[in-house]
Amino acid sequence: MNPTTRIEHDFLGERHIPSNVYYGIQTLRAMENFAITGIPIKNEPLFVQALAYVKKGAALANRELGVLPANIADAIVAACDRVATGEFDDQFLTDMIQGGAGTSVNMNANEVIANVALEMMGHAKGDYDYCHPNNHVNCSQSTNDAYPTAFRIALNNKLVGYRQALGALADAFAQKGEEFKNVLKMGRTQLQDAVPMSMGDEFHAFATNLREELLRIDDSRRLISEINMGATAIGTGVNTPPGYAGLVTQHLRQVTGLDLLLAGDLIEATYDTGAYVQLSGVLKRTAVKLSKICNDLRLLSSGPRTGLNEINLPALQPGSSIMPGKVNPVIPEVVNQTAFYVAGADLTVTMAAEAGQLQLNVMEPVISFALFTSISYLTNACHTLRDKCVLGITANAAHAANMVYNSIGIVTQLNPVLGYEASASIAKEALATGKSVHDIAVTERGLLTQAKWDEIFTFENLIRPVFIQ
Amino acid sequence: MNPTTRIEHDFLGERHIPSNVYYGIQTLRAMENFAITGIPIKNEPLFVQALAYVKKGAALANRELGVLPANIADAIVAACDRVATGEFDDQFLTDMIQGGAGTSVNMNANEVIANVALEMMGHAKGDYDYCHPNNHVNCSQSTNDAYPTAFRIALNNKLVGYRQALGALADAFAQKGEEFKNVLKMGRTQLQDAVPMSMGDEFHAFATNLREELLRIDDSRRLISEINMGATAIGTGVNTPPGYAGLVTQHLRQVTGLDLLLAGDLIEATYDTGAYVQLSGVLKRTAVKLSKICNDLRLLSSGPRTGLNEINLPALQPGSSIMPGKVNPVIPEVVNQTAFYVAGADLTVTMAAEAGQLQLNVMEPVISFALFTSISYLTNACHTLRDKCVLGITANAAHAANMVYNSIGIVTQLNPVLGYEASASIAKEALATGKSVHDIAVTERGLLTQAKWDEIFTFENLIRPVFIQ
Amino acid sequence: MNPTTRIEHDFLGERHIPSNVYYGIQTLRAMENFAITGIPIKNEPLFVQALAYVKKGAALANRELGVLPANIADAIVAACDRVATGEFDDQFLTDMIQGGAGTSVNMNANEVIANVALEMMGHAKGDYDYCHPNNHVNCSQSTNDAYPTAFRIALNNKLVGYRQALGALADAFAQKGEEFKNVLKMGRTQLQDAVPMSMGDEFHAFATNLREELLRIDDSRRLISEINMGATAIGTGVNTPPGYAGLVTQHLRQVTGLDLLLAGDLIEATYDTGAYVQLSGVLKRTAVKLSKICNDLRLLSSGPRTGLNEINLPALQPGSSIMPGKVNPVIPEVVNQTAFYVAGADLTVTMAAEAGQLQLNVMEPVISFALFTSISYLTNACHTLRDKCVLGITANAAHAANMVYNSIGIVTQLNPVLGYEASASIAKEALATGKSVHDIAVTERGLLTQAKWDEIFTFENLIRPVFIQ
Amino acid sequence: MNPTTRIEHDFLGERHIPSNVYYGIQTLRAMENFAITGIPIKNEPLFVQALAYVKKGAALANRELGVLPANIADAIVAACDRVATGEFDDQFLTDMIQGGAGTSVNMNANEVIANVALEMMGHAKGDYDYCHPNNHVNCSQSTNDAYPTAFRIALNNKLVGYRQALGALADAFAQKGEEFKNVLKMGRTQLQDAVPMSMGDEFHAFATNLREELLRIDDSRRLISEINMGATAIGTGVNTPPGYAGLVTQHLRQVTGLDLLLAGDLIEATYDTGAYVQLSGVLKRTAVKLSKICNDLRLLSSGPRTGLNEINLPALQPGSSIMPGKVNPVIPEVVNQTAFYVAGADLTVTMAAEAGQLQLNVMEPVISFALFTSISYLTNACHTLRDKCVLGITANAAHAANMVYNSIGIVTQLNPVLGYEASASIAKEALATGKSVHDIAVTERGLLTQAKWDEIFTFENLIRPVFIQ
Repeated sequence: MNPTTRIEHDFLGERHIPSNVYYGIQTLRAMENFAITGIPIKNEPLFVQALAYVKKGAALANRELGVLPANIADAIVAACDRVATGEFDDQFLTDMIQGGAGTSVNMNANEVIANVALEMMGHAKGDYDYCHPNNHVNCSQSTNDAYPTAFRIALNNKLVGYRQALGALADAFAQKGEEFKNVLKMGRTQLQDAVPMSMGDEFHAFATNLREELLRIDDSRRLISEINMGATAIGTGVNTPPGYAGLVTQHLRQVTGLDLLLAGDLIEATYDTGAYVQLSGVLKRTAVKLSKICNDLRLLSSGPRTGLNEINLPALQPGSSIMPGKVNPVIPEVVNQTAFYVAGADLTVTMAAEAGQLQLNVMEPVISFALFTSISYLTNACHTLRDKCVLGITANAAHAANMVYNSIGIVTQLNPVLGYEASASIAKEALATGKSVHDIAVTERGLLTQAKWDEIFTFENLIRPVFIQ
Repeated sequence: MNPTTRIEHDFLGERHIPSNVYYGIQTLRAMENFAITGIPIKNEPLFVQALAYVKKGAALANRELGVLPANIADAIVAACDRVATGEFDDQFLTDMIQGGAGTSVNMNANEVIANVALEMMGHAKGDYDYCHPNNHVNCSQSTNDAYPTAFRIALNNKLVGYRQALGALADAFAQKGEEFKNVLKMGRTQLQDAVPMSMGDEFHAFATNLREELLRIDDSRRLISEINMGATAIGTGVNTPPGYAGLVTQHLRQVTGLDLLLAGDLIEATYDTGAYVQLSGVLKRTAVKLSKICNDLRLLSSGPRTGLNEINLPALQPGSSIMPGKVNPVIPEVVNQTAFYVAGADLTVTMAAEAGQLQLNVMEPVISFALFTSISYLTNACHTLRDKCVLGITANAAHAANMVYNSIGIVTQLNPVLGYEASASIAKEALATGKSVHDIAVTERGLLTQAKWDEIFTFENLIRPVFIQ
Repeated sequence: MNPTTRIEHDFLGERHIPSNVYYGIQTLRAMENFAITGIPIKNEPLFVQALAYVKKGAALANRELGVLPANIADAIVAACDRVATGEFDDQFLTDMIQGGAGTSVNMNANEVIANVALEMMGHAKGDYDYCHPNNHVNCSQSTNDAYPTAFRIALNNKLVGYRQALGALADAFAQKGEEFKNVLKMGRTQLQDAVPMSMGDEFHAFATNLREELLRIDDSRRLISEINMGATAIGTGVNTPPGYAGLVTQHLRQVTGLDLLLAGDLIEATYDTGAYVQLSGVLKRTAVKLSKICNDLRLLSSGPRTGLNEINLPALQPGSSIMPGKVNPVIPEVVNQTAFYVAGADLTVTMAAEAGQLQLNVMEPVISFALFTSISYLTNACHTLRDKCVLGITANAAHAANMVYNSIGIVTQLNPVLGYEASASIAKEALATGKSVHDIAVTERGLLTQAKWDEIFTFENLIRPVFIQ
Repeated sequence: MNPTTRIEHDFLGERHIPSNVYYGIQTLRAMENFAITGIPIKNEPLFVQALAYVKKGAALANRELGVLPANIADAIVAACDRVATGEFDDQFLTDMIQGGAGTSVNMNANEVIANVALEMMGHAKGDYDYCHPNNHVNCSQSTNDAYPTAFRIALNNKLVGYRQALGALADAFAQKGEEFKNVLKMGRTQLQDAVPMSMGDEFHAFATNLREELLRIDDSRRLISEINMGATAIGTGVNTPPGYAGLVTQHLRQVTGLDLLLAGDLIEATYDTGAYVQLSGVLKRTAVKLSKICNDLRLLSSGPRTGLNEINLPALQPGSSIMPGKVNPVIPEVVNQTAFYVAGADLTVTMAAEAGQLQLNVMEPVISFALFTSISYLTNACHTLRDKCVLGITANAAHAANMVYNSIGIVTQLNPVLGYEASASIAKEALATGKSVHDIAVTERGLLTQAKWDEIFTFENLIRPVFIQ
């Protein structure tokens, strides 16, 4: 035997494993079998951490219920604590997309934790009599409860950072809303001039729009906090000692600090992917909103001479390799693209969820890949949009106000005084002749006095119209 | 002038309108301009009703605030009451997909209500001096608040019937769960034999799975109960008298009996489509679940001789034009297809929501088309699945139980006694030789006594395993 | 027995059928079983026609091969000819979405044709001894070859009208391209001012963009011209006489006038939905292009005072129920929404195609629903966009040209003379100070002479730049 | 100045760049601005190579047309040759998703090539007077032609490997088709027993199904071979010398060995993303087919005792952490999941394509991200499915044949002799009583002689039925 390898076996046969690695034969097989994305599980440290939490919680419950000797349980707990810190992240090499419904990831965790525990107990890696990946680390568990529980814990923790980033972005918009509250601008519907408004209200609405998402994230976190520990293979709890499901859930609440709940119907919970579909839908909804907002920022900053030119985005980089001086809205553009990625990932989740069969949804790994990347990318997009764009936006206040006074849309303010049809007639003439609404209404047609006009068209009344008949 | 037509005009010119119709010039233009789906608004009676509710609520508020003469307001209210009953549904002929962000639908309502009111007041249709579609029926409103408010009221009411249908379907599954509780069957993960379970638990899990959707529908109804009446064109409330927004909301709560809420940020609420995206996501989630369940029903009833054949679906129609006696799972199949429609409609909603620009989302009509059809189809699918399939399902109990005893998967029950590796070795031999787990474990290898075997493999312990070491 | 009904039976039992209807017991069962969309097959007359073609082709082949008595075959052929004209469209009442992989639609056709044939032969409807839906009309066929063949014939014919509509739309854009060829305007990339161009080139590019789609439609028609007649149940050709598959294909080529081809691998062809996925992808691609073009039309016509305002779309209807004189780009908007529908329908097709299992794809009905509606809506959208919008577009030539001369983007024209960095410096100063490029480059900095400037900035050179160093 | 950095500037200011790196200030800004996916351009070596090809082609054309001094052009060409080998891949650090429509990627290439050229000419990195990223390397180009051209070249080359992998997979299925040609099995439609067939035909159909994809890939390659070099900023060719577009295309054909074509309408070609949408649709179509095939493999191998169990997939890894001896279809499962990823990526492409505006589609980077990953993952999936699964599949021939003889579906073979209704009656009795078709038809009812039965039910006639009346 090569001294730099050890031999491990499973029921399919024997394999040489490098002596220095903590993973074992099943992880090795997984690495050989699955080479699709090239992105390993270790890229999601919160997932590795959550796997360690799950194994720790199980070990604690198993010890308490007498199905795991105390010394082995203690070693597993100690190993989990180290794995949870990220110390062994480099041992989690299974590809993000795998077959087997997460078995390879679960076994990767079982093997790494067993070998860390073995070393801490003074045994050699691979000496599984003293601490076995299946019999001890995986005791009272199946991939089918351990994997989704770890996944849900990881999602829960990952959403914390995302929620912060999104909240900070919303706050930045609110701050700009305050800053621009006295900027008069034309509101537009269907890209056509509508009625005047405050630019502050426009930016504050972006904040409102995104803040609503924070509540939806909270809803999602509640749904993904329902776990199925103790379900084992299909939800019947086969191979678990009495009282285990409740006890392990209790331990996991303490280990993770999360408000985890045991599902009421473990058969259903073992195959159900509803919480992932819901979360993915929430991420997509936010993506759609971010994309809409970024479309607006790009429209409002279009120009500088032949567009709307109401606002200026920070100039971050030369915008063209050929057009000198061109500066482009590169940050909104990258956020748009992130949103399209997230919408695509939501479809991936949808199809994967639909493909579940009977007692298990075997497509959960691609669901985890889609959700992890979507949350990461959205979090990055929120930070980027806030820091590199929103906080530095400035308003072209004079230009924006001039467009209002030069518009036809202000005729709407005259509806209560003149009625819709008379107002429409003024608008029609203004459009045809290029004249101003004021000239037609007051000077030419004498439909209202200058005094009445002045009463209606105050700055304050344009931004927050008061009803004047 | 042709006595069978009347002449109406708008700022684009004059048009002849058939004397007997209640819609007017703008509806006529819409009918000419939009001929995409061929499906008119009248196909959604709840939407027509909701438009009448909105106009009634507005008239009541306008009368109270003195911006509409009492006699005109009263006539509008009376007309709305008739329209709400469905009496004039045939006058709502605008295509379900239109440009103009719903303006044509809003004007269709304004025109029909104005003409009904005119007749009730003793005037001729088209005599708009006495009751004008824009100045009176649409008073203090814009399409941009009236249309989405009516849409949300209609969705709210439409969801009531859907929720009932889905709940009844879930109940039917629960009833079957009770009926099949003593049917022993093999659980399967990844389409491979796993461990035994009760067929009752399998069917009860379907009920659990769908009952969770009822809560999500309730969430959606809360979100779509937020309305923006009083926002008018872009949310600034231009052309509304003071106090109008709150008052009209109050009236609408009473008129509809719904728990409607005025949005806190009317600028945002006027363009926000978040509630539709959320609702669409909920519908898709349910569709995904229904599709998964129907996939299972088709799998479980596969055969009769060369499939799983655990259950029988009711025979509803000959299954083949060529294969005699073939009966197919046609109801699950049609539900699967409905689910794919709903997933597609969700994408339509997503893209339409993303396409909103600045102060309005002009794509709301296609969102309403997608949501109305999705809810209708899902409601029909739930009724169909329950009535034509689930309630008539029978179990092949003996066959299902035989498969369990003949399986290798029951070896899992021996894990706590023999450990994972010894059990795996038994399984491997069983697979290779065709022998039974019992013969290998008890007879050949003598790993446990017959008495221990009998203790472990009781019927009750197979269905709801108790931990035996 | 009620004189107004006849009794029919199948292997599930007997049912009363109204005496006057041509459909039979299996259609009746289908109508009862499937009530999802409420949209019956008769809404697609080309599909009914194609079913008649298929049955006619089969009858001709069957007669020739001696498996169908000549008199029955002749009666079937005569009946098919009448059905193909649309005379019995109202008898095709099966819902567009059904379970059973099209069996109900196939039987609906078999029953109607049998009863029409019976009457033409002098027998009573339902007297199936003389002409039986299964034994005679469906002779040598299965739903699994007859249904997809009819579907493909219908698609083929439906694409003819769609292709014409799309081609005419492209021509309209080309015509506008010619009309606007001397309109100078600013090109924009990333919504930022880029370099000048001709508006004619911009519109001609729309024509180019759409004309490429015509070739893709031709590709699709080739793929869907591959049929599987003679495959019967699963592609083995069970129940067909020797030579049938080739012969029926030959007859069908003649009956339909289409270039139909028999698939080389009938097992594969019986479940394959690849041609539908491809066609759906092509429809989606066109939808995406139409949506992009309509987005551009809406942008270019934005304003009138606070937008780009380079072009005017025809005013088709008042644009607002509250804002007088407002005219909206309602036609592009409805085309955008149609595009979103088509993208959603493509997802429906994708999921349905993926859900095929083993020897058949049972989800073909929803695929046909998605494709039929997508083609119809797109055809309508093309007509609408051409007739109600594109042909009436006018250019604001003076305004467009003014924006060019006032822009900073023209500095790019100076790159070959001054280099990128010097040009960028001019651009930067222009942006900061509001000065023109000419003033900075010629007057202030003297970087080029007025003569050189004039040589570079001719009208022709701005539209179609010649390299000047 | 820090000796380990050099200073570079652009029109936004100065920045320190590490002395040892070849990228410059604009790449640095891009790295700071875009941190979304964490996946840099260097992960797609074929893209870096294609960028070098484009720059080389341009330099050759520029030298020939006299707009670039020969010595600079030669240095650029030499630098490009080195970059194309992958020597400087580690300098391409821009994130796969960026704003700016690819400007950062184009500048990353311009800067690296300029600095490599400078060093080869004996100058210091950053001494751009001698070879400037914009003025020289990017001469006669814009991001808007260079980026998409490089992208298309990279796609073209990447498709070569994908096509090979897919073809090899199809061949493996064909090989199994040959191997299993004498295995009799039950065909199934709608998961219900249909009629018998050869397992060889079933596997050969998988080959047919996938081989059709090879032709679609060829179509795609033709479409993406259309390039827009010489279009520069918006397609007008501003800043290019006469004859450049044709000449650079000619050079690029030679440099790449690809059959590249210059687009006929450069305005259109500069914003058109149709070829990407088409390619993405083709990838999705293949994904859908692969997923369907893998669903079938999983169904056919279901069991081993309570499923169809017609075939055995190679056992690659223990299938469960709790169920001993369980082996799962992990390879088909990972391919299913890959397919769902690709379907999601297609949606990303769709939305990105739709979002193009006016003269450019700024969302092209996310399109490239989606297409590159989809092709990579599909290529990996094809290799994996072939090597780890298909080649090792074995048939359970005896079990499969037994199921046929025990089935009711064989009654279809009697249709031509007995008619559909008599056959249906036999089937009904068989289903109700559990008797065999033979016993009912021959023994009990005497509907045909044993001799006739034997003539019909030969092995050959079951697999490839001959018509017997």
